[in-house]
Amino acid sequence: MSNKPSLPRGMRDFGPEKMAKRNFIFNTIKSVFSKYGFMQIETPAMENLSVLTGKYGDEGDQLLYKVLNSGDFLSKSSIDDFNSGSNKLTQKISNKGLKYDLTVPFARFVVMNRNDVTLPFKRFQIQPVWRADNPQKGRYREFYQCDADVVGTESLLCETEIVLMINEVFDRLGITEFTIKMNSRKVLKGIVEAIGAGENETDFLVAIDKLDKIGLDKVKEELSSRGLDANMISMAEDFLSIKGTNNEVIEALSNLLSSSEIGMEGISELNKIQEFLEPFDLRNAHIEIDPTLARGLSYYTGAIFEVKINNVKMGSVSGGGRYDDLTGVFGMPDISGVGFSFGVDRIYDVMDELGLFPEEVTTTTNVLIAHFDEESRQYGLSTLGKIRNEGISCEIYPDIAKIKKQFNYADKKGIPNVIVIGSDEINSGFLKLKDLTTGEETKGEIESLIQKMLD
Amino acid sequence: MSNKPSLPRGMRDFGPEKMAKRNFIFNTIKSVFSKYGFMQIETPAMENLSVLTGKYGDEGDQLLYKVLNSGDFLSKSSIDDFNSGSNKLTQKISNKGLKYDLTVPFARFVVMNRNDVTLPFKRFQIQPVWRADNPQKGRYREFYQCDADVVGTESLLCETEIVLMINEVFDRLGITEFTIKMNSRKVLKGIVEAIGAGENETDFLVAIDKLDKIGLDKVKEELSSRGLDANMISMAEDFLSIKGTNNEVIEALSNLLSSSEIGMEGISELNKIQEFLEPFDLRNAHIEIDPTLARGLSYYTGAIFEVKINNVKMGSVSGGGRYDDLTGVFGMPDISGVGFSFGVDRIYDVMDELGLFPEEVTTTTNVLIAHFDEESRQYGLSTLGKIRNEGISCEIYPDIAKIKKQFNYADKKGIPNVIVIGSDEINSGFLKLKDLTTGEETKGEIESLIQKMLD
Repeated sequence: MSNKPSLPRGMRDFGPEKMAKRNFIFNTIKSVFSKYGFMQIETPAMENLSVLTGKYGDEGDQLLYKVLNSGDFLSKSSIDDFNSGSNKLTQKISNKGLKYDLTVPFARFVVMNRNDVTLPFKRFQIQPVWRADNPQKGRYREFYQCDADVVGTESLLCETEIVLMINEVFDRLGITEFTIKMNSRKVLKGIVEAIGAGENETDFLVAIDKLDKIGLDKVKEELSSRGLDANMISMAEDFLSIKGTNNEVIEALSNLLSSSEIGMEGISELNKIQEFLEPFDLRNAHIEIDPTLARGLSYYTGAIFEVKINNVKMGSVSGGGRYDDLTGVFGMPDISGVGFSFGVDRIYDVMDELGLFPEEVTTTTNVLIAHFDEESRQYGLSTLGKIRNEGISCEIYPDIAKIKKQFNYADKKGIPNVIVIGSDEINSGFLKLKDLTTGEETKGEIESLIQKMLD
Repeated sequence: MSNKPSLPRGMRDFGPEKMAKRNFIFNTIKSVFSKYGFMQIETPAMENLSVLTGKYGDEGDQLLYKVLNSGDFLSKSSIDDFNSGSNKLTQKISNKGLKYDLTVPFARFVVMNRNDVTLPFKRFQIQPVWRADNPQKGRYREFYQCDADVVGTESLLCETEIVLMINEVFDRLGITEFTIKMNSRKVLKGIVEAIGAGENETDFLVAIDKLDKIGLDKVKEELSSRGLDANMISMAEDFLSIKGTNNEVIEALSNLLSSSEIGMEGISELNKIQEFLEPFDLRNAHIEIDPTLARGLSYYTGAIFEVKINNVKMGSVSGGGRYDDLTGVFGMPDISGVGFSFGVDRIYDVMDELGLFPEEVTTTTNVLIAHFDEESRQYGLSTLGKIRNEGISCEIYPDIAKIKKQFNYADKKGIPNVIVIGSDEINSGFLKLKDLTTGEETKGEIESLIQKMLD
């Protein structure tokens, strides 16, 4: 019996080439996180549903993948449970789910390890998460998140470090055209206060979050349909229309928010972050204070960030912000923190589109040893050993096969060098190293060929 | 509402220290795999149950984690399904499961990518797998597998390469006392033929697989209870008692198996692998041909391997072998391959017990900048930037806090160096670098301190 195998919808394999390119991104991010003192942790794929449920809103709960209890899972459920429908029955037959993001498991980790963790705790985490979302272009049901967070300090230096890390990661990846947008939830709260829309704060945030996508007129329509009156909308427009350099934006905000304590606090924080950034060479980073940046409806309470690539049409490739109460829901209140995340799938697409992956990223093997027969293959083994002893990645074609087939293997696998061994080479000890890219041939004893490859 | 969070049974968090040590093992394995020309791939956590079911025996099927279909999963099931019990209902409400190993998903990958994959295809894969097993000491429900396989060639050079890779990985990890046990399924088939137990092949393999654990007498009892007669058992004892150097073992086997074609084929293969190994410097690897090694009831058909640590009581830390028909079940027959796997959890325990993790493995940050006040913290930022520009991992304490608290942070995080900045340092430009391990203090301008850290 044979069947044609397939992948579940929204799930992906990563073959050697994609994997090598993804690893280039992952390794760059890891290396920057480590350089800034962040430590990696991992949490399991499965969490108890009691940990996950209720943390992502009703919609999020629906998108959680639930895992069937093992064994005779029905033993604890009755016909009544079945008749009550899927939601009710789920509670009886499933108590674990796949993690939906890295943030809630991290909060659980901090609470469960509160006695071992030294605050401020700087951690990073690179793992897949799962969402039973509707798959579409660029949206998958399994995808990696790359998060870094600092918890246990309110210092705005942490926000500063985030900007520096974003800058260094993109710099190392070769991405030069990007904008780090920055705002503060406190500024947004101030705006809501100033226009007198306190009761409609959520409506206001939801609407202005769409400004980039739908434009000012549509946002005004939406604000109106969400119950803001004409006066409020007119005042909101003053804020949404602020333009200019960061200093001009800050000045305009200060004028409009002078009566709002929380608004002025937000402005002062944005100023402080910029002051902290001054001693650093930011190279390409363009920082833009954008009072309309809202970052959805998440748990942020202070500064928020989002990164856009200027020369590729694409959503944000990184984002984050400060939150006041990550662990409160697990019984450990008043832990402030700030975190952010890189969107690896989008960064991959940007780099692919701009041709930024260095060619050597997909080179796994440096040299292939080809041969004509049993004898030259056996001779090739000691050549192989000598090359590997110098740390050079090398393989020998395992079968006795036509030379053309062996070169074809090197070509398809992107192996840049081939050494061919035959009876002449065995007799003379002089081997030929062929560079498949340039066609150049070098003849010499193995030691001198190794030296050439190391140069 | 707050609740005390917990982890599902058999699942683990990896905090910073464990993670750093695990990464040391993973990175070593990855680096060796790459040096030998293996390319990394990844497959999703979830597979269609049609891919997974029936590949691991009845017991394995029971241990598969099944994922509930999303949305109103009951819509396709009737009260009859409910009444038929858990197994029947599962088929209606779940069509995906978590992967149980890396081998079956790899076979699926090869079949689905048959037109893109160049044979021989050398791939490695390092990912978690899940089994709804009974958790016990050293056995978890989520654990990483580290597999390397070559498919599409019958060359015994691939078996040779596996021995070399095992050797290089353990050498780099600092594990010197290990034995690579080797046998061939063909030798075992020959033994079964020679003793006339052809009909009881599986019984024979199951019983002798336990030789290490329960000893010869108990194995004989088990062979008897499994239906082998006294004559067979007496002949089996001749095989099970073979001792001596590899050459002596081969000689004894050759005498006993001279009439078995498949047995002699197995012996000739073991000889060939040893011949291929001759040109290489194996350092610590002790290779032992063990005619009683059976490697469970898996799909192996040729050479098989298992690695034991000599000076730690522990099951095998690596194992593998050749198989004839990995992809046949998915409609792509006659693809021979050979693969093996490192048991990372066990290797971790071995290294922990023998104290083999290098101290620097858990060092994330090289130097902490401590300070007395706002002014010295701001000054410290440019120091921070200069140190990081040289590629040295460095952090600044984010809050204004007592110096003791800042040193305590460095101590707990294992940061070996601290630079303290106060008004004297700001005025003179001369900073003090304190080595927390030796207590040594070095005074100098930042450039000379950086030079010292780089030396």
